[in-house]
Amino acid sequence: MSDTLVNMRDVRFVLYEMLDVEQLTKYEYFADHSRETFDIALDAAYKLAKEVFWPAYVPMDKQGVSLDTANNKATVAKEMHEIWAAAREGNWQGISGPAEYGGQQFPGTISAAVHFIQNAANTAAHMYIGSCAGAARLIYSFASEELKQIYVEKLFTGQWGGTMCLTEPQAGSSLSDVKTTAVPAKDGDYYLITGTKCFISNGDHDLAENIIHPVLARLPGAPPGVKGISLFVVPKYRVNDDGSVGEFNDVITAGFEHKLGLKGNFTATLSFGDEGKCRGWLLGEANKGLTYMFQLMNEARIATGSQATSVASNAFFHALEYSKERFQGRRITEKDPTTPPIAIIKHADIRRMLLIQKATVEGVFALLAYAAFVADKEHASPSAEERENANLVLELLTPVCKAYGSEAAYDAIIQAIQCYGGYGFSEDFPLAQMLRDCKVFPIYEGTNYMQAMDLLGRKVPMKGGKGFQALVAAATKTVKEAASIEQLKPLAEKIGAALKIVGETTMHLAGIAGKGDIELYMYSSATYIKMFSPMVVGWLLLWQAVVAKKALEKGAGEADVKYYKGKIETARFYINHEIPHLEANAQIMKSNERTAIDFDEEWF
Amino acid sequence: MSDTLVNMRDVRFVLYEMLDVEQLTKYEYFADHSRETFDIALDAAYKLAKEVFWPAYVPMDKQGVSLDTANNKATVAKEMHEIWAAAREGNWQGISGPAEYGGQQFPGTISAAVHFIQNAANTAAHMYIGSCAGAARLIYSFASEELKQIYVEKLFTGQWGGTMCLTEPQAGSSLSDVKTTAVPAKDGDYYLITGTKCFISNGDHDLAENIIHPVLARLPGAPPGVKGISLFVVPKYRVNDDGSVGEFNDVITAGFEHKLGLKGNFTATLSFGDEGKCRGWLLGEANKGLTYMFQLMNEARIATGSQATSVASNAFFHALEYSKERFQGRRITEKDPTTPPIAIIKHADIRRMLLIQKATVEGVFALLAYAAFVADKEHASPSAEERENANLVLELLTPVCKAYGSEAAYDAIIQAIQCYGGYGFSEDFPLAQMLRDCKVFPIYEGTNYMQAMDLLGRKVPMKGGKGFQALVAAATKTVKEAASIEQLKPLAEKIGAALKIVGETTMHLAGIAGKGDIELYMYSSATYIKMFSPMVVGWLLLWQAVVAKKALEKGAGEADVKYYKGKIETARFYINHEIPHLEANAQIMKSNERTAIDFDEEWF
Repeated sequence: MSDTLVNMRDVRFVLYEMLDVEQLTKYEYFADHSRETFDIALDAAYKLAKEVFWPAYVPMDKQGVSLDTANNKATVAKEMHEIWAAAREGNWQGISGPAEYGGQQFPGTISAAVHFIQNAANTAAHMYIGSCAGAARLIYSFASEELKQIYVEKLFTGQWGGTMCLTEPQAGSSLSDVKTTAVPAKDGDYYLITGTKCFISNGDHDLAENIIHPVLARLPGAPPGVKGISLFVVPKYRVNDDGSVGEFNDVITAGFEHKLGLKGNFTATLSFGDEGKCRGWLLGEANKGLTYMFQLMNEARIATGSQATSVASNAFFHALEYSKERFQGRRITEKDPTTPPIAIIKHADIRRMLLIQKATVEGVFALLAYAAFVADKEHASPSAEERENANLVLELLTPVCKAYGSEAAYDAIIQAIQCYGGYGFSEDFPLAQMLRDCKVFPIYEGTNYMQAMDLLGRKVPMKGGKGFQALVAAATKTVKEAASIEQLKPLAEKIGAALKIVGETTMHLAGIAGKGDIELYMYSSATYIKMFSPMVVGWLLLWQAVVAKKALEKGAGEADVKYYKGKIETARFYINHEIPHLEANAQIMKSNERTAIDFDEEWF
Repeated sequence: MSDTLVNMRDVRFVLYEMLDVEQLTKYEYFADHSRETFDIALDAAYKLAKEVFWPAYVPMDKQGVSLDTANNKATVAKEMHEIWAAAREGNWQGISGPAEYGGQQFPGTISAAVHFIQNAANTAAHMYIGSCAGAARLIYSFASEELKQIYVEKLFTGQWGGTMCLTEPQAGSSLSDVKTTAVPAKDGDYYLITGTKCFISNGDHDLAENIIHPVLARLPGAPPGVKGISLFVVPKYRVNDDGSVGEFNDVITAGFEHKLGLKGNFTATLSFGDEGKCRGWLLGEANKGLTYMFQLMNEARIATGSQATSVASNAFFHALEYSKERFQGRRITEKDPTTPPIAIIKHADIRRMLLIQKATVEGVFALLAYAAFVADKEHASPSAEERENANLVLELLTPVCKAYGSEAAYDAIIQAIQCYGGYGFSEDFPLAQMLRDCKVFPIYEGTNYMQAMDLLGRKVPMKGGKGFQALVAAATKTVKEAASIEQLKPLAEKIGAALKIVGETTMHLAGIAGKGDIELYMYSSATYIKMFSPMVVGWLLLWQAVVAKKALEKGAGEADVKYYKGKIETARFYINHEIPHLEANAQIMKSNERTAIDFDEEWF
């Protein structure tokens, strides 16, 4: 069984050779870092992932979580406690947190790589860890100094756990229908929270002495819809003046989900204020809760793409190793049945399935790293223009990371299972669990259709299409460079054509919106994101091929020559297979396909 | 929760309005049947499926199967015993068996519909039942009169169970490497069998007093490869001269698979002849075992398409009901958040996901029924020419039923889960189990790449492409008819174009094979079947649209008007979405895409 979680050669290629992430250390905020600190973090993360996270992968699934309802006591696997302790020891909860609050202040690009590694080993486990930083950053960014002092460092150091509490049973994705209420207390600076939140990942556990819930709720008299939602910090246990954990804050865990996968993670239904004693503290200004929460939601969306793709990475290396070790059949041209069977990797169709996986994992990892790199620029660049451009590109890429990452990864794991044959259907091998774990990613943190609507409805037209234009400009630069390299010219032409097709299709759809057919415009978004995403990933793989080709020309060692050649041919495989389907999707949209819009529900 | 397993209106539409299955009763073999007996069987099958099969669906998954190794005693759920008894009472094991051996001698088209219904309710359960008939028909078709008298009726009446034993641990799909041996006994008409078979569905259980294993094995001195494989009838318990069950035949159940799904079905590893006492009887002639087994394998491949699609049918009706009952969000054009939420089926994207499911379920059911209808003609037509044509078309459609059926159904279930949102990831609803159950179908009974190779490597070129031409001729007839109907003209044009593209691509690939590049030719099969299948299903849906349109013109009741309109628009949805991707796949093949062939395994 493979214990390669992630190809670290590829991680370093993306960070150092493709993105040149060291340039971030010229920004003041990251000035204490260097390639050396980056490498130490990456190596340590991999070691921990392999030695502590990964051995717990199957046991945590088998054991699941439990809840003692009578005592409101949630329990997670003992292996998770070991991971938590090790993560705290290495300050992994705080990898990208500001140093003033106990964090390591690494660039997000480095922490994206670290999260990818930890997710690859055990994503249900990593969720507990990542959610500390998510809640911490939300409070750090928008809360009062007082709240920051109480919560931020304890979250970044993993002393306390964190969540995000948006969904309610009756409302699902429709946040405008959030009903949880927050009533100002008569005797203090807090609010009394009442309501139920469901599908809360990391919602309860016994890993930390306290759990901090950012909760969306409505103040009395708040406007209807999303404009009347405020954000509150609601601890499981109240915090004493000295910062220690105080009395129970009336947050009851009403139950947990019996899930297809991610069974090691506690997905809770939380009941706030059953006894009328649940105190919450307003985070930022009233009625701006959703705006604030979008910071965390956007992080969570990119994190979801990372979860999916990293699991696909682990699955890919399992399939790769299995394909080398499993001997079966003969070459298609070999007619003599007495010749010995060959390793199945020698069958071209197995290599086809492995290439689907390799292209997905490497292409989407590049996308995730690029998104994080852009976010680092948005955060730390001294140039206002660069910050704005970075923000626009990041906004555009966020739904792509989530939706395309989650779907492509799932398809890749299916290919890994297919490489295993019958053993892929067996729970005695970890691939079945990987498939189960990954099924939620197209659903949670905003369904993939919400991502599609976000991309076409908000992100593409944002600021007159400025982000879109910036992305196309960056891709066009790569295309020009690739076109000057003989070996890459056919690929450059295909990505060039794809950019043109996506542009034309976007204009076509804008025309539909212009005529007022918002229904067809938004409906088309589901197909649009399927067209847009391979354009982005195809571009990033072409960019990688250019870097690899140049490195080959400069001269490289034997292992690197193989790596670079593989990189170039992976780009070729992806582009040759995906761009024709990108065109097909464009064709569907250009024909104004609207059968589902006009389909009467009684015809089903 | 939905209890609609299958749309019986659609089943009857396919059988009576599209295929005119009653015409089969003019053949002597089916002369005792009529529309009346068909309807009685369909209604009874549905009632049994709903009342007995379906309630056991979740319990059988939860309970799984067990094995008492010390006593070689396999046990399945008590619910399965109830199903078995009910199935025997209705003689469902023998639905298509010849009357002289206790069967009901229904046309295969009717039994295809019955199997679809029973699979939709509980496919793990139906496997036990269907495998009786599979083994029975194999013995009936090829064995000596003596063996037929011993086994066939007991299998068709479900007194004994049946299996098919092909796969061995070291050989997997590579049947030429089968190692199980059969040595002629010195003291009788039997052979001593020694070997291990794995992944044997229905391989052991306590449903019947005996289990009959058709086993592939080699005789001493047999030629290497598939030309040296013989087929043996190996009962779990020997049969006394009076037909009663005799002593144990040294067939040990070494274990069972811990599977992702189909947990209610006992997937065994069987050890034959550990004590040197396992007797088998040669079925037909020596060294022709694989030829015989292909009858059963082809049945099993079509059955696999049925399993997958029927589960997708059940999932679809769950998603449909959920989409009507779940209220969330507002129309995209509704800006007032105080208006009440709407049923999610009113969102166009939900209808898009439902239409993917509906088109898949109805399109592939039509394919399965058409394949069975063609098989009935092959079996019962008095015309030698019609029998040959039917055989060729059936050969061509078999890998499409299996590969496309299994993949499209899986994708459809994913859409059903997406309609459920977070609840789709919960094991408290049956969709997660449906997804788990369906993951094996692209793998077993010959992986989908084996189906692809079968289609392009054997079936398309068979007899100079005669089957392919017959299929294209049938589809062209539909296209011409549809082209004369204004509403269907655009769809007719698209299917017409698809036929042309598939023809051209086939010629292009034949040219590659002609130049001796067998590796590229066979490699292309994986893409070829993805192009070929939507052509077939698109044609069948167009055919249905023509029938529906004519029925509408003749005048129909209110419910039928809705059904027919839905039928036409389902064809439109499928064709508009799938044909552009068919073209994309053709484009990939025409560009001689071969990156994976040339990709060095050390580059991964």
